[in-house]
Amino acid sequence: MIALSLIGIGTGNSDHLTRAAIRAMNEADLILLPRKGDAKSDLIDLRRTICADVLTGETRIVEFDMPKRADQPAYLEAVVDWHDAIAAIWMEQIALHLPDGGTLALLVWGDPSLYDSSLRIAQRLGPAVEVSVVPGITSIQALTAAHGICLNRLADPVLITTGRQLREKGWPKGVRDIVVMLDGHCAFQTLAAEGIDIWWGAYLGMEHQALAHGPLETVGPDIIERRALLRERHGWIMDVYLMRLSETLSPPA
Amino acid sequence: MIALSLIGIGTGNSDHLTRAAIRAMNEADLILLPRKGDAKSDLIDLRRTICADVLTGETRIVEFDMPKRADQPAYLEAVVDWHDAIAAIWMEQIALHLPDGGTLALLVWGDPSLYDSSLRIAQRLGPAVEVSVVPGITSIQALTAAHGICLNRLADPVLITTGRQLREKGWPKGVRDIVVMLDGHCAFQTLAAEGIDIWWGAYLGMEHQALAHGPLETVGPDIIERRALLRERHGWIMDVYLMRLSETLSPPA
Ligand SMILES: C[S@@+](CC[C@H](N)C(=O)[O-])C[C@H]1O[C@@H](n2cnc3c(N)ncnc32)[C@H](O)[C@@H]1O
Ligand SMILES: C[S@@+](CC[C@H](N)C(=O)[O-])C[C@H]1O[C@@H](n2cnc3c(N)ncnc32)[C@H](O)[C@@H]1O
Repeated sequence: MIALSLIGIGTGNSDHLTRAAIRAMNEADLILLPRKGDAKSDLIDLRRTICADVLTGETRIVEFDMPKRADQPAYLEAVVDWHDAIAAIWMEQIALHLPDGGTLALLVWGDPSLYDSSLRIAQRLGPAVEVSVVPGITSIQALTAAHGICLNRLADPVLITTGRQLREKGWPKGVRDIVVMLDGHCAFQTLAAEGIDIWWGAYLGMEHQALAHGPLETVGPDIIERRALLRERHGWIMDVYLMRLSETLSPPA
Repeated sequence: MIALSLIGIGTGNSDHLTRAAIRAMNEADLILLPRKGDAKSDLIDLRRTICADVLTGETRIVEFDMPKRADQPAYLEAVVDWHDAIAAIWMEQIALHLPDGGTLALLVWGDPSLYDSSLRIAQRLGPAVEVSVVPGITSIQALTAAHGICLNRLADPVLITTGRQLREKGWPKGVRDIVVMLDGHCAFQTLAAEGIDIWWGAYLGMEHQALAHGPLETVGPDIIERRALLRERHGWIMDVYLMRLSETLSPPA
């Protein structure tokens, strides 16, 4: 039997770790750390630091190279193939390092439920692997905490969506408050900016945390420029933003 | 100068506490704990336990009685008055216990950004109070972790909404996945249940955690019954649920 623990570690700050996460890391026999290539080496360094920081016992740490996602136009198919490939690597590592069973842990960025594939990959491992999840602080919470703002307006709904959705479908129907993740191309550019406020954050919780907020009309162009510079300087960027439609405008019905 | 730290403590399990939360609690001169009346005494007991558990220094703990929210029909106005009343109490307590300034901490259920009023109340305190936020695990994350599920479908958006919104407006436009919070009356009853799956959780992270999931048609009535029983037994209940529309149905356009 293999117990697989998917542990949310927050978004780059070891202070985001919960007591449950620290305990689950220490209870694991093996922690697998993915190497994602040079540009994102900060991210594996961070996971190494977290391990060094909190592990007190016998837990072994093994690194593996993440397969690359094919750059094919059929996005969803490429993702499915990629998840299959990652599942195969996890199985290999289990066979190699836990031949008699035990507890494997994976350190998941943010929270494992939010735009993360670990749970979907874990489902491919079959019934001999029992999965449990330890929640972690998401980048959305890191964003709102850094700005000192609420996610929702009083008694109002909020939509969590992606850059791709926003670009392809425009401002979503029936909501005034939206969070946009996974946006490599500043999809807010495709909106009519008037009456929209934005709260933006990059590298949240990390050393290089960058914040901006204000009317999209004026702050939007700044963010585009700053994002490009930061991305060049650090070799990678992760950012997320909240946008609110002014009280005087109605969302598309 | 007063520094006010709004500390997310997760949803009832002291293992949800992050390292940042524990540090912020210990850095505070004063922690204010709200008493919410008999039925919810479990909730202050839990905060007392958390304090006893993690405080190592000189932090003082002071309890105060939360004012009651007027049961007037104008919901939003009642809430605004209520926030004013709470802000006045915080100011009283600051004047009483931190006359020369210092750091005040409040332990916020879940994460301070999510359907919580602390930030809105804090805004009423004026510029002499500097607010900072420590993120915490939300009930949504406790729900998805307990069920071992993702919040979003691959690359899809997800809406976070309230029981009141769902009851008044029906299934939201353009989304297949919704989380419903603050629902005292099982608003899912007002939907045509066919083609909807539900993942429900009450007392998440706590001793009496209760879970249910399945097709809304069959599981919905069970939840209504179980919720009433649990509420009677414990004197209070908090629950949250995720619903997904089947791939074969389209959300209202
Ligand atoms: C694959 S998703 C994973 C999200 C993660 N599971 C979470 O709970 O936040 C990656 C996206 O999360 C956001 N993100 C993650 N970490 C971030 C950080 N430290 N700062 C800003 N955005 C971040 C960005 O929108 C990024 O495109
Ligand atoms: C006033 S809101 C506060 C939410 C909190 N800030 C959070 O991050 O989860 C209260 C609502 O949160 C949900 N909730 C909070 N704690 C919960 C728990 N332990 N189990 C189930 N639902 C919970 C319920 O929907 C409840 O009506």
